[in-house]
Amino acid sequence: MEVKKIFLPESELPRQWYNVLPDLPTPMEPPLHPGTGQPVGPDDLAPIFPMALIEQEVSQERNIDIPEEVLEQYLLWRPTPLYRAYSLEKYLDTPAKIYFKNEGVSPPGSHKPNTAMAQAYYNKIAGTKRICTETGAGQWGSALAFCCALFGLECKVYMVKISYDQKPYRRMMMETWGANCVASPSTETKAGQTILERNPDSPGSLGIAISEAVEAAVTGENSKYSLGSVLNHVLLHQTVNGLECQKQMAIAGDYPDVIIGCAGGGSNFAGHALPFVRDKINGKEIDIIAVEPTSCPTMTKGPFAYDFGDTVQMTPFLPMHTLGHNFVPEPIHAGGLRYHGMAPIVSQLILSNIVRPVAVPQLETFQAGVTFARTEGFISAPETDHAVAIVIREAIKAKEEGKEKIILFNWSGHGLVDMAAYEAYLSGQLSDHALPEDEIKKALKDIAPFPKPQQYTG
Amino acid sequence: MEVKKIFLPESELPRQWYNVLPDLPTPMEPPLHPGTGQPVGPDDLAPIFPMALIEQEVSQERNIDIPEEVLEQYLLWRPTPLYRAYSLEKYLDTPAKIYFKNEGVSPPGSHKPNTAMAQAYYNKIAGTKRICTETGAGQWGSALAFCCALFGLECKVYMVKISYDQKPYRRMMMETWGANCVASPSTETKAGQTILERNPDSPGSLGIAISEAVEAAVTGENSKYSLGSVLNHVLLHQTVNGLECQKQMAIAGDYPDVIIGCAGGGSNFAGHALPFVRDKINGKEIDIIAVEPTSCPTMTKGPFAYDFGDTVQMTPFLPMHTLGHNFVPEPIHAGGLRYHGMAPIVSQLILSNIVRPVAVPQLETFQAGVTFARTEGFISAPETDHAVAIVIREAIKAKEEGKEKIILFNWSGHGLVDMAAYEAYLSGQLSDHALPEDEIKKALKDIAPFPKPQQYTG
Repeated sequence: MEVKKIFLPESELPRQWYNVLPDLPTPMEPPLHPGTGQPVGPDDLAPIFPMALIEQEVSQERNIDIPEEVLEQYLLWRPTPLYRAYSLEKYLDTPAKIYFKNEGVSPPGSHKPNTAMAQAYYNKIAGTKRICTETGAGQWGSALAFCCALFGLECKVYMVKISYDQKPYRRMMMETWGANCVASPSTETKAGQTILERNPDSPGSLGIAISEAVEAAVTGENSKYSLGSVLNHVLLHQTVNGLECQKQMAIAGDYPDVIIGCAGGGSNFAGHALPFVRDKINGKEIDIIAVEPTSCPTMTKGPFAYDFGDTVQMTPFLPMHTLGHNFVPEPIHAGGLRYHGMAPIVSQLILSNIVRPVAVPQLETFQAGVTFARTEGFISAPETDHAVAIVIREAIKAKEEGKEKIILFNWSGHGLVDMAAYEAYLSGQLSDHALPEDEIKKALKDIAPFPKPQQYTG
Repeated sequence: MEVKKIFLPESELPRQWYNVLPDLPTPMEPPLHPGTGQPVGPDDLAPIFPMALIEQEVSQERNIDIPEEVLEQYLLWRPTPLYRAYSLEKYLDTPAKIYFKNEGVSPPGSHKPNTAMAQAYYNKIAGTKRICTETGAGQWGSALAFCCALFGLECKVYMVKISYDQKPYRRMMMETWGANCVASPSTETKAGQTILERNPDSPGSLGIAISEAVEAAVTGENSKYSLGSVLNHVLLHQTVNGLECQKQMAIAGDYPDVIIGCAGGGSNFAGHALPFVRDKINGKEIDIIAVEPTSCPTMTKGPFAYDFGDTVQMTPFLPMHTLGHNFVPEPIHAGGLRYHGMAPIVSQLILSNIVRPVAVPQLETFQAGVTFARTEGFISAPETDHAVAIVIREAIKAKEEGKEKIILFNWSGHGLVDMAAYEAYLSGQLSDHALPEDEIKKALKDIAPFPKPQQYTG
């Protein structure tokens, strides 16, 4: 029998995260204070993040130690297995070899606890009592709830309303782990109240929910805020994934020609890809693909510009691909991919032609997900299906080209709490939402015109 | 850092199942034909099962080879990890060492594919086109749907109505894997029609659903039936779990003093426990505990007797602990533990004082599940919480006795598609359903009075 899964022993769990900042071909633009236009300093962020995370956000150290307490908790599910997708290969009749990293084995079923555990830990030792956050499809909120439970912290989650309604199971998961979860926009914050006055039926968005969580953290007693994606330190923590993959691919005796991950805020994709980005910067030829939905085409249609991370303009200006901070995408089922912006690190790598963004329509993603479920057995999260769709495209291309390509992708989570989405697809209720050009133009008007980052290409 | 999970390499996947029949201290009573009262022969079963499974049902071989094709599919998720529950131990302040086998890593999230994969394979090579089955909470139906998809078989599932309504996600999983699932009692079979005439609001039961699936298999073209528990060959396939545990406990350097599993039809419990039952028969001192709900106290209140496996009296008489084939338990959330009977092998082991049955009330199980989720991180299936509850009792007892007991239990599946049950518990909507003695007496009247098995103790 051929080896199907490559496990690493616990002793091979990476002891350090990889920080890409010192290796970037062009330096990052700093986040700017929206009032002064000046780079944001540690003091500006201190009200919302513990200092250890602020330091990681700007660190130029290439390798950053993972605290012992975080390593111990990682062992609950890490190292995660790397799979060879023999059945999918056979079904597609492709010469490509397809590998996938199974991040679905974590207790909440996704990659998100990689950073949630680290953030909960740093908050714990800084004396935080309560962490506030937002969540889209609920993957992030459930992951943070899980990690807060293990470290004995309170957890408050603002969940995008459309997902709160569509995905009650993730809310129930949060509550089982002891968190308090409300639909966003909520009446609990001024930010939420403002949105609801404008549009009582707002389906919500990650931008809105971020505003609420930040407000709750700043105004609440002994509370801090936690972000599940976008920021440098979040991507940093996720690199434990890619670092494991590098060891596992070495055991498999293969090196990827193509790396694929879905990207909402960018941390899932980056955590998988960044260690390989380092190799690419050092000369390796790899096609590194970040996949987004056509209904929220941040990377493929949004310019690289300074914009707010949230809707109510409480965050610093971040240099990133953005569709404008007021952009609210169609209520597609991949709730985690509905963010108007993209991680500055990922945005910068796109500008530098190191990462190639691709947009894929909703129906193709579910078709891919069903194919994957009926060949490899695992039912993917709708977000993950975006990666699966491009894997299938690339495997078919490899067949057409007659090339034995090595494809590696990040199977970022299972979809067992997203089954309503599959039912909607199987019963023909879903459609594609390619965003019309005029709507994109309209959305882009909201991007703050001042100041432009140096690499502005819009 | 201490080792948290013990993995076996794929090369250590057991190559044979363990058959307990030749090791039993007293021989099994045969199943009897309800018409003739004579032992059921292979020809009687041939309309519903492929011959390879019928042979396994009565085999006296101690070790039975796992076919190569089944081994290959097992590798999708097996060997499964064995965990040390350090956080739970710490929380309980117990000197006990608690280990759990994580069967939740399979694609449908439970132990059920261990036999579903084998049954799908043997049907495939026998030329079956469609497999019909019943399911309670949906763990079995989703597992069979998953395995049928991989072997290219059609799958028809009759799902107990109360679970069909409470747990739509498992139905959607089945459909995503390509199966056809209907609520039972259904109008599609004579058995279902009969029940619905008597009680149009019947919540269904496993017994009823079995009747429907057997009828569909016998009357359908090129169709066979598949059972997810109770029968000898099903328990046989599940032993891959316990055999792995034995290797993993040896790696851990511990041997269990107590083994705990939840038991509905008995296969989950038996698959985990039988390899240790062999050790106990050979002289090892182990407390082997099968856990059931107080609302369906088959093992603790039902006599050992010959009874039908189903409600509409289509199956042979099986020698087993039973509450009577017409017994319909309260609609508790652990749908997989609502069966009126118990596997003949497990029943026999109870008679022989090798297995000790314990019943636990519903609220205690969910309390245990929440404790487990907030310490070990994983959210258990409500069935699995029955085992967790007794683990906690035993760990507390070990503390009271000041003994460093080794407790091993079967974490048979995750509860991420059972979150509605947790929400009901957390919001105070659940209650306990200990069955009144007079109801038990009433139910027992339906047990077929003829013939008595030799060990009849009722």
